[in-house]
Amino acid sequence: MNTPRNVKSDPSKMKTRQVRTPEDSKVSLDRLEELKKRAVFVARSCKELRERYQQSEDGLYYLITATGVVYQTFCDMTTAGGGWTLVASVHEDNIYGKCTLGDRWTSQQGNNANRPQGDGNWVNMKTFGTAEAATADDYKNPGYYDIQAEDMSVWHVPNNSPMNHWNLGAIMRYHTERRFLSLYGGNLYQLFQRYPVKYNAGAHLADNGPSIPVVYDLGNKEASKMFYGPATCGETEGGFLSFRAINAERAATAICSGVKPKGGEVDAYCVGGGGHFPQGDPNQCGDFVSFAWNGYGTHVSWSAAKEMLESAVLLFYR
Amino acid sequence: MNTPRNVKSDPSKMKTRQVRTPEDSKVSLDRLEELKKRAVFVARSCKELRERYQQSEDGLYYLITATGVVYQTFCDMTTAGGGWTLVASVHEDNIYGKCTLGDRWTSQQGNNANRPQGDGNWVNMKTFGTAEAATADDYKNPGYYDIQAEDMSVWHVPNNSPMNHWNLGAIMRYHTERRFLSLYGGNLYQLFQRYPVKYNAGAHLADNGPSIPVVYDLGNKEASKMFYGPATCGETEGGFLSFRAINAERAATAICSGVKPKGGEVDAYCVGGGGHFPQGDPNQCGDFVSFAWNGYGTHVSWSAAKEMLESAVLLFYR
Amino acid sequence: MNTPRNVKSDPSKMKTRQVRTPEDSKVSLDRLEELKKRAVFVARSCKELRERYQQSEDGLYYLITATGVVYQTFCDMTTAGGGWTLVASVHEDNIYGKCTLGDRWTSQQGNNANRPQGDGNWVNMKTFGTAEAATADDYKNPGYYDIQAEDMSVWHVPNNSPMNHWNLGAIMRYHTERRFLSLYGGNLYQLFQRYPVKYNAGAHLADNGPSIPVVYDLGNKEASKMFYGPATCGETEGGFLSFRAINAERAATAICSGVKPKGGEVDAYCVGGGGHFPQGDPNQCGDFVSFAWNGYGTHVSWSAAKEMLESAVLLFYR
Ligand SMILES: [Ca+2]
Ligand SMILES: [Ca+2]
Ligand SMILES: [Ca+2]
Ligand SMILES: [Ca+2]
Ligand SMILES: [Ca+2]
Ligand SMILES: [Ca+2]
Ligand SMILES: [Ca+2]
Ligand SMILES: [Ca+2]
Ligand SMILES: [Ca+2]
Repeated sequence: MNTPRNVKSDPSKMKTRQVRTPEDSKVSLDRLEELKKRAVFVARSCKELRERYQQSEDGLYYLITATGVVYQTFCDMTTAGGGWTLVASVHEDNIYGKCTLGDRWTSQQGNNANRPQGDGNWVNMKTFGTAEAATADDYKNPGYYDIQAEDMSVWHVPNNSPMNHWNLGAIMRYHTERRFLSLYGGNLYQLFQRYPVKYNAGAHLADNGPSIPVVYDLGNKEASKMFYGPATCGETEGGFLSFRAINAERAATAICSGVKPKGGEVDAYCVGGGGHFPQGDPNQCGDFVSFAWNGYGTHVSWSAAKEMLESAVLLFYR
Repeated sequence: MNTPRNVKSDPSKMKTRQVRTPEDSKVSLDRLEELKKRAVFVARSCKELRERYQQSEDGLYYLITATGVVYQTFCDMTTAGGGWTLVASVHEDNIYGKCTLGDRWTSQQGNNANRPQGDGNWVNMKTFGTAEAATADDYKNPGYYDIQAEDMSVWHVPNNSPMNHWNLGAIMRYHTERRFLSLYGGNLYQLFQRYPVKYNAGAHLADNGPSIPVVYDLGNKEASKMFYGPATCGETEGGFLSFRAINAERAATAICSGVKPKGGEVDAYCVGGGGHFPQGDPNQCGDFVSFAWNGYGTHVSWSAAKEMLESAVLLFYR
Repeated sequence: MNTPRNVKSDPSKMKTRQVRTPEDSKVSLDRLEELKKRAVFVARSCKELRERYQQSEDGLYYLITATGVVYQTFCDMTTAGGGWTLVASVHEDNIYGKCTLGDRWTSQQGNNANRPQGDGNWVNMKTFGTAEAATADDYKNPGYYDIQAEDMSVWHVPNNSPMNHWNLGAIMRYHTERRFLSLYGGNLYQLFQRYPVKYNAGAHLADNGPSIPVVYDLGNKEASKMFYGPATCGETEGGFLSFRAINAERAATAICSGVKPKGGEVDAYCVGGGGHFPQGDPNQCGDFVSFAWNGYGTHVSWSAAKEMLESAVLLFYR
């Protein structure tokens, strides 16, 4: 069987990518002024920036929400016509920590049935992190709940990669094309109001949220499946982006990236979730759930490959 | 006896309030440009924005501090002449967590007599959160210590309400009218320098800080009292905003909203505080102190009503 | 032996310094507009602001990074020609908490050999805190990794001092003059890529990072040494700023301020570090490491003086 290691190049090379290139140190005043002038654009999304102001360069731009909040985030102006707004990243900073500090997309306060939704960040207006640190920690900006979008794009980017290496350094990139978000309120904040990410919201398989077919920009549906533990192969189908998947013990996860869940062990291949995971309490609780169930990055049984475990999941809207 | 449930409508209706209205999705470019142009105003408070620039719409504006820090916050331009600046919110994200993560207004590092002031955020220049998430987590902006104010307004707003529903969705709103802040340095940062919120700062009743009469904008002094546990009725008087109340074991709380304390069980009806609460260690420690002493939202004995327990306390200056 | 108490004035006077002066409350509109106009400058560092726009007043300014991130920080425009950018502060908010919340420069998730780098903030692009709260909590802005600098300046400023009292209220200030950063990539983000701050990166003395001679702006090399515990005198030399010092148990610390390490007890006089400190597990783990090894602020044996323990370490680039 192919392993993701065959798909991707030597991880030791990724290390050198993390160091900023010397060119960064010589940025002209003209260039800085050009970057600063981006503040004059008035747009609620990267898509609007592209359409209204003909911006086609990847990088940081200012956006404004319906209530007037101004924020900076990364726009992917390249993929499939561009106009993709980075709104969030799911990052695991300590797989040994089980719903401890940094597990913002599940619970930072332990595995606890009294808090079925955990920290609740999938359905509130809290924001955290910065675009530039989206591969170094969790990120969520106001676009997550403000932008009215139709499609999503997802990048898995090695931890601590600088922004200008995200695209080429990613281990997987794909996007949807069927405007599925229009059916669920236009963004994840609305989608997860309809499919609450909380313990005991329903039964596995029967009550899962939608699974949307994706088009790959880097990788393919076989590689996508194989980043997860070999034992997951029996219950996953590659080529999908799936939401609110429930496991055998009624714990909820938020996003299954690259796969459609077809069983009750979704904790081994879906990220984020509620605040309670009954099995092996508290060992499944955390942003990357049970990705290291059979050892750290071993890619044995239920354990994901090291590349996946050490990459942040970047979420874009368009 | 009337319960707050009679005062307020069915909590299940509040749920629907939380979902953003469809109108939010269709904001014109003109409107966004208008919001963005608010950045040209130069004012240290919402009061100045109202007086100098005739702004009368509730919403987010930019303010600037004496040292040049620019920040965005919510202005209430309606209540009693308007000009109220939101400077902070006290939010309980986990009443089961006793001085754990999120208990920024008491201690996030346990119930500990070695840290009598706890995290010290009542008297430092740390800031956290955002205006839009003021009902989803704690909030504190530079206005808390920068603005020179005379009066305060307090709103109790159900958790996770969006900004445009705060006013109508609140369960209680009131303000002071006697310019009391002028006597204590012009803001809470100064007031609490004079009345330190720390364990063992004094004795209950004898060393409490000021209690200021309030005028109700929503609710009344009877309803105000009744949000707290029935057992507190014997030692509270409605119609006041009170500061630095001390309990029988010399633990300090910061703000008693809607009531004047007249006994030693202030932990059951005052929010925020120092870092040590001796009784039932650590069960009184946390941002909403012992509001669930006799069960979660039971409104039995010392337990506050569910509406109160699940609402953030928004603090405004004018 | 002289103690730091002789060097500095009565700590009770510092208390009064913390309270903002009444003049702050009367800032003219002209002054606010002047502060706001600083937003038009385009510069990547305070040095550029000084050279390109002739700014010579200490205070908050806007900077922009190579990628277009705009942020506000404090510029010291006075010391030795000025042009110093505040990029970070190392603050100990709870010396009783051993690698708990707030220990961002070591680990906030316990003393753990499985996380040799701890939280990794010396070598990632995470940012936290604000300039104005740099003495109230940890601070790190994008300048930390963006600015291409040659020298460093370090201030030890009593906790919770307001910005306009930092310079006069500091207990120690010094800077380097030999452009050492040019040899290590131009900033600490690059320097610590070369000298990883992690457990087991090498042996004490043999594998320490560079020690750079400093020029004092307040204090001197004797006073500098004496802020640390008397027992450290045998293994420190005053007059240096040192990086990545390793202790006898192979734990790594990040910065030894004012001294060059010459032994294996660097944990008693260096701040920040990796995520694992074997000796007395977990008692050496935390931002100020083992500064209270022999009691809180006792200045006995290995314990630092109270002045040092209760001051934040502010890091500037030029
Ligand atoms: Ca974790
Ligand atoms: Ca995380
Ligand atoms: Ca299972
Ligand atoms: Ca709590
Ligand atoms: Ca809180
Ligand atoms: Ca009691
Ligand atoms: Ca600590
Ligand atoms: Ca710290
Ligand atoms: Ca030792």
